[in-house]
Amino acid sequence: RGPWAGLAAAVAAALALALAVSVWRRRPRPVREVLFFPSQPVCTEALLVEAVGPGAVTRPCRCPLARGDCSLSRLLRRLLSARRSLELCLFAFSSPQLAWAVQLLHRRGVRVRVVTDAQSMEMRGSQIGLLRHAGIQVRHDQESGYMHHKFAIVDRRMLITGSLNWTTQAIQNNRENVMVVEDYEYVKAFLDEFERIWEDYNPRNYSFFP
Amino acid sequence: RGPWAGLAAAVAAALALALAVSVWRRRPRPVREVLFFPSQPVCTEALLVEAVGPGAVTRPCRCPLARGDCSLSRLLRRLLSARRSLELCLFAFSSPQLAWAVQLLHRRGVRVRVVTDAQSMEMRGSQIGLLRHAGIQVRHDQESGYMHHKFAIVDRRMLITGSLNWTTQAIQNNRENVMVVEDYEYVKAFLDEFERIWEDYNPRNYSFFP
Repeated sequence: RGPWAGLAAAVAAALALALAVSVWRRRPRPVREVLFFPSQPVCTEALLVEAVGPGAVTRPCRCPLARGDCSLSRLLRRLLSARRSLELCLFAFSSPQLAWAVQLLHRRGVRVRVVTDAQSMEMRGSQIGLLRHAGIQVRHDQESGYMHHKFAIVDRRMLITGSLNWTTQAIQNNRENVMVVEDYEYVKAFLDEFERIWEDYNPRNYSFFP
Repeated sequence: RGPWAGLAAAVAAALALALAVSVWRRRPRPVREVLFFPSQPVCTEALLVEAVGPGAVTRPCRCPLARGDCSLSRLLRRLLSARRSLELCLFAFSSPQLAWAVQLLHRRGVRVRVVTDAQSMEMRGSQIGLLRHAGIQVRHDQESGYMHHKFAIVDRRMLITGSLNWTTQAIQNNRENVMVVEDYEYVKAFLDEFERIWEDYNPRNYSFFP
């Protein structure tokens, strides 16, 4: 037991600690983002074409809208990160850009399920009909109250929720917020709520003669 | 340097670690809660009277509503925990129970500031007039878009946000969500947004002859 034994032990401990810290730091930090609206109108063409995949034809868009990052493009990017599943629970859905993104994910093989409000679904500009036409599963309420949620869940991993209805009016004109939360405790609560509503709105439960 | 020196060092290290873990575990866990609506109608009288303080006269309420815990009572409890400040940024505010809670906090010396939407403020049942009458500072938009946020910040520490407008219709009939988040990163983002809007809606900036 020489004087070096203690030193060797201390060095070993320090190395172990350094290794643990480096492993811990290399874990990707969970997404925690807040987006505020109104968002200036920008061209989202490049973002959507890029998301189609490596084989996509990329022609520079000639529209006069500004390029650059904004709350809408950030929201689109979060959505387009989906690889396996997307649950949407939306009071109103009339934004063409967001609807394109959802259809793109559906074509890419992502399992998309949409829950919406029956009254808002009938409003002008609603994208729900187009989504159904594209083969996406949609269910709606049959209640007197509103299905007023506005949330999305990406890959059972990321929750996107807030005050924003997915309408161009809301995106470009209203004061709105959207939180992006990668925290399983919150994701699980909203996923469970989605499954409850999905089952409640199962067409088997419709009563056509109330 | 006897054989016990190493043992003593190990014991000391273990004790230090145990102490650190115990201190860490005793920190109150930050609130992370999700409330879903509709909430069944319950009597919130006892909750509000209790919040007045120790000198309050407590008579059992004779209304026929059910007693017990629900999303509305949980939301009220979170609000009533305010000791210093409350920022409210609400599209619509017509729930009498939530308005009583806010007035109670104001009387208790909590600094309450309210931002709301001008159009919704004029709707039947809006509590904004009563809040102003009670001496609470209220500011509203003068924009064509909606001030569509629905959030509250308690003591610059806790964020309460979601899809829920503070109306009895929404509380009792709609599918809604409210997140309670005690996480300074999110709180700070919403607090900054509140201060921006508070300044934007300063009556000094009103243009009466647009």
